[in-house]
Amino acid sequence: MSANIREPARGGHDGQNGRIDKQIRDMGERARRAARRMAAAEPGEKNAALFAIAEALISQSDAILAANARDVKDARGKLDNAAIERLELSGARIERMAEGVRQVAALADPIGNLTDMNFRPSGIQVGRMRVPLGVIGIIYESRPNVTADAAALCLKSGNAAILRGGSESVHSNQAIADAVARGLTDAGLPKDAVQIVDTTDRAAVGAMLALPEYIDVIVPRGGKGLIEFVADNARMPVIKHLDGVCHVYIDDDADREKAVAIAVNAKTQRYGTCNTMETLLVAESQVERILEPLAQNLMQAGVTLRGCAETRKRLGPRIEPATDDDWAAEYLAPTLAVKIVPDMDAAIDHIERWGSHHTDAIVTESVTRARTFIRAVDSASVMVNASTRFADGFEYGLGAEIGISTDKLHARGPVGLEGLTSQKYVVFGDGHVR
Amino acid sequence: MSANIREPARGGHDGQNGRIDKQIRDMGERARRAARRMAAAEPGEKNAALFAIAEALISQSDAILAANARDVKDARGKLDNAAIERLELSGARIERMAEGVRQVAALADPIGNLTDMNFRPSGIQVGRMRVPLGVIGIIYESRPNVTADAAALCLKSGNAAILRGGSESVHSNQAIADAVARGLTDAGLPKDAVQIVDTTDRAAVGAMLALPEYIDVIVPRGGKGLIEFVADNARMPVIKHLDGVCHVYIDDDADREKAVAIAVNAKTQRYGTCNTMETLLVAESQVERILEPLAQNLMQAGVTLRGCAETRKRLGPRIEPATDDDWAAEYLAPTLAVKIVPDMDAAIDHIERWGSHHTDAIVTESVTRARTFIRAVDSASVMVNASTRFADGFEYGLGAEIGISTDKLHARGPVGLEGLTSQKYVVFGDGHVR
Repeated sequence: MSANIREPARGGHDGQNGRIDKQIRDMGERARRAARRMAAAEPGEKNAALFAIAEALISQSDAILAANARDVKDARGKLDNAAIERLELSGARIERMAEGVRQVAALADPIGNLTDMNFRPSGIQVGRMRVPLGVIGIIYESRPNVTADAAALCLKSGNAAILRGGSESVHSNQAIADAVARGLTDAGLPKDAVQIVDTTDRAAVGAMLALPEYIDVIVPRGGKGLIEFVADNARMPVIKHLDGVCHVYIDDDADREKAVAIAVNAKTQRYGTCNTMETLLVAESQVERILEPLAQNLMQAGVTLRGCAETRKRLGPRIEPATDDDWAAEYLAPTLAVKIVPDMDAAIDHIERWGSHHTDAIVTESVTRARTFIRAVDSASVMVNASTRFADGFEYGLGAEIGISTDKLHARGPVGLEGLTSQKYVVFGDGHVR
Repeated sequence: MSANIREPARGGHDGQNGRIDKQIRDMGERARRAARRMAAAEPGEKNAALFAIAEALISQSDAILAANARDVKDARGKLDNAAIERLELSGARIERMAEGVRQVAALADPIGNLTDMNFRPSGIQVGRMRVPLGVIGIIYESRPNVTADAAALCLKSGNAAILRGGSESVHSNQAIADAVARGLTDAGLPKDAVQIVDTTDRAAVGAMLALPEYIDVIVPRGGKGLIEFVADNARMPVIKHLDGVCHVYIDDDADREKAVAIAVNAKTQRYGTCNTMETLLVAESQVERILEPLAQNLMQAGVTLRGCAETRKRLGPRIEPATDDDWAAEYLAPTLAVKIVPDMDAAIDHIERWGSHHTDAIVTESVTRARTFIRAVDSASVMVNASTRFADGFEYGLGAEIGISTDKLHARGPVGLEGLTSQKYVVFGDGHVR
């Protein structure tokens, strides 16, 4: 999908695209109306809907599994095994999906929260109220569980949602959406609060991106091709995540046990995640003491190391040579770039030049250098003596996440309920005028 | 400028535009370097720079006045008197500019503020640190005082700035920028932290908008043409303000004195501001009791009323007829659209359909309806029994404002120092791994 989505109009003809544009526009109008109702919904109503959705996912699991079997059958021969594994549902996976929805119900309701009420010298009282964004468009690739997760987060935060999943999982998504609609209706909320685009025509994505009057923000989740396409073409704001080129820097004052444990975990706990370490930076003074045993450890775990000239000189030719491409690489694989740096300033310079501002960690016992690193590294998450793998909405206590943002405006880092909200100013007077 | 700026490339030739692109790119690179230093600047350093800037504005006021006289001379015959009045500086105006800069120094420094530090079940401690956005591009029209105001806010929030003022005030802006550079240098901060685009060529605006790698956010300040051009062409996020179609709704339970005072103030205190009331909504039950005396009052103040059919029927033919264009109009003039509505729900529907989500007020003594109005009206500022004219950074206690945002993402409503910052996650562990 990532590759093909770049030409959304090609292959369609005007009549077809015109029909899809109208279909998406109609969905947008219904979403806008539903969003007004959702913004006014009481916490109890929203939670009742979430519990009803969880129940419907279970009671309709036969239908969901049947739809999923159809998607899996269609995918055989077209997708690789890993992609089919991600696509495939089971009773246990549906149970986990329902449990995820119940967990969102248990989160504190952010909407209507009124903070910072201050009296001003003029006599007016000014504060800020947390409010939904309105209509969230979510464009995602194969995993069908995103349909339930995203619906739950949008609902809890008082928004309406238009979901557009991958064409591979279209039947699964539709069956899950039916359960969501059932839950909303059972709780007396509009079923248009969560709508799913049922056409697999790629023109639907282009149509969504062209509707800033109905869709307030777009969240793309998937490969880089999808995210770049959405960022380049959306006429509304986008909450997005591009690369995760994460660093661990082992400082002069690092504790050896912590350094080895953190670096091994940051690289090997999972290779395919955006918060996995892709480049290891080591202070020159720590090569013998830490890098040598650590490199052994990583290679034993099956990681290929690509080092700077100094690394190869010190650790020998079993380390492959690294080029500039390696400093910029998000391998998502058992490969690690390694660079020896003279000091922390050089490490920070490297991170600022080559990193993706996602998550970067220092291992040090020096409180002074920890403080400097935290201030100087301009990334969504900056860590001291912890594995980059902690950069995650659940680990941070957000309860759930709709995605991770590497942008600086609005949401940064893991995006939970708060990232799907805004604040408005509320002013109370008693006939006050200027 | 608003009209001409739509064709930034026309009139230039490739060599000229290539030179300007390079000039702006060089400024961007210097700004990016300066931004790193500014992000690490201590509060004391930034305040010392602000006081030094205030001092330099005063000590160099002869040069600033001479440069301004040149701009004013060039503008005669090209700009109208109101525009020339806005352009013209005096000793007193420079003193106020300096005082504004000193006031920014007195604001609390937001940078480095670490909040919400929580221990998680995994043992890591997670919080958020407030950080600068990086490099702010500000594109503004004639008032030269924006140069000093914007520089002060960007500096205090730890950002670097690239300022592009109107061509009418190019000499004034350059002279003010010289004083800013002097203050930065005196305080040991890089003078590249605030740079001003000195070419009047419109291609410079296009060049700025095409540099997302060097400019993190653009703030356009000026007419609608400028703002739309920037929003349509910027490749980075934009903090912007479009229309201000503000409403006052006089409810069934309104207090008459408050209603009249608020409506008169919201319309007549200043006609040309974005938070001025443009449409008055009145509950049917309050026509005789409030609308009739209020209409007298407004007309005596010189305001032309354009009413719905019901308004004209009740108040007579001295009220001009309103069309749909009037409900959408931001008059910025002594003209007011008036509509009689059956109840608050109809008022809210009208505001949601025709308003610009800027500032809307209800006048009521009913706490129930006040609460409903606050929740249901989706505007950057929602007010109860107060004049819409209070929607302003100074009135809200932000200390100063870089602009007002009618967007929902990132900053909403008056934008002060906080709107020029972001937050990053900070994680502390002690060798923690997943």
